[in-house]
Amino acid sequence: MSPIICTVDVVLLTLHDASLHLALLKREHAPFAGVLALPGGYIHAEEDSDTRDAALRTLREKTGIGSAYLEQLETFSGPGRDPRGWSLSVAYYALVPSRLIDHESRPEVVLRPVDQLQGLPFDHPRIVEAALQRVRNKSSYSSLPVHLCGETFTLPRLQGVYEAILGEPINKVSFRRKIEELDILEAIEGQLETGKAHRPAQLYRLKKQYRQHLALTDRGLNSAG
Amino acid sequence: MSPIICTVDVVLLTLHDASLHLALLKREHAPFAGVLALPGGYIHAEEDSDTRDAALRTLREKTGIGSAYLEQLETFSGPGRDPRGWSLSVAYYALVPSRLIDHESRPEVVLRPVDQLQGLPFDHPRIVEAALQRVRNKSSYSSLPVHLCGETFTLPRLQGVYEAILGEPINKVSFRRKIEELDILEAIEGQLETGKAHRPAQLYRLKKQYRQHLALTDRGLNSAG
Repeated sequence: MSPIICTVDVVLLTLHDASLHLALLKREHAPFAGVLALPGGYIHAEEDSDTRDAALRTLREKTGIGSAYLEQLETFSGPGRDPRGWSLSVAYYALVPSRLIDHESRPEVVLRPVDQLQGLPFDHPRIVEAALQRVRNKSSYSSLPVHLCGETFTLPRLQGVYEAILGEPINKVSFRRKIEELDILEAIEGQLETGKAHRPAQLYRLKKQYRQHLALTDRGLNSAG
Repeated sequence: MSPIICTVDVVLLTLHDASLHLALLKREHAPFAGVLALPGGYIHAEEDSDTRDAALRTLREKTGIGSAYLEQLETFSGPGRDPRGWSLSVAYYALVPSRLIDHESRPEVVLRPVDQLQGLPFDHPRIVEAALQRVRNKSSYSSLPVHLCGETFTLPRLQGVYEAILGEPINKVSFRRKIEELDILEAIEGQLETGKAHRPAQLYRLKKQYRQHLALTDRGLNSAG
């Protein structure tokens, strides 16, 4: 059997100027040296305990980001996607609050709005497209977007994050009902966001049990929906 | 870098006696020779155009099944899942009508009810668990279960298939409303199922455009659900 090139790639998403951005890095080596690409690299069988671990290591080594909400997306493969030979990439997507990018990421990390991506190498356009589709789809029925907020946030801020991902305005009443249904937030006692033009708003944070696991709304055949 | 063992595994599901069954094969070689396992095998870089192609080839060669509704599930990996070394398996799930198993599958294929699986080797229990969770979840909002029916079917039959997957009775009125919303079926003109104790029922088939792509119900934040 011919050897297969085994890699991981990470679609790292954050909010910047209220719109969804992708983190890219200039490739150091051929192929595509100097071209902006997804953070990725080889799986290291000697040190990685699985592909998720490889993705976290890659993220840490290449972007400086040590923690992120991370989920496996899909595995992309074939003889044509990498000029070096038959390859597969186990792709992950990661969501981080912009504060983390500002404080922890290496200066080499470049943010690009997801609707202004051009010239990505390999099959990275296809990987990014699949990640955006997954994140948008999942955001419509889960707590996923919360991972783009900082540790604490107001409900209007969270609504803005959902709107940035879904790309459309959301009705405030439906939004609050869905969030209540998800039952993932806890109000932080005595903490209000102040100093803005509006009246002070209650600050919330994600309940502990949802920090690595998503909450899903019921959308069964038996539900009212 | 140490070489990584690259394989595919297929969770092949069908309905048998109105309940969900998994197709298994006795392993011919070590490790776990003689043990019932998922159909699987190495990715062949010389002949497979991607991992999906590898999964279809494996299915064809090992079970005799030449066509199935097939989707990528997830990639499982690590140093401990295969005694031969660090390995990854790109897992797929496949849905086929029982007629196809009856007519096309090799005699070696063994069907087991999904709630009575014991002694599966490697991390196959985990792969099967993930596949069942995905299929059940996806069935609650998509046309996925239709791929377990034959080419033509009545609505009561289709409802039975959804119920077998979801493991619970479904309200007939909600079911018909969801199916109408999906808009995936076409009535076959002049064809009624007869010969049963009940009055003749209209026969349906899947619209052509949905035979390899799923239809999803809307479950956005803006929807009534």
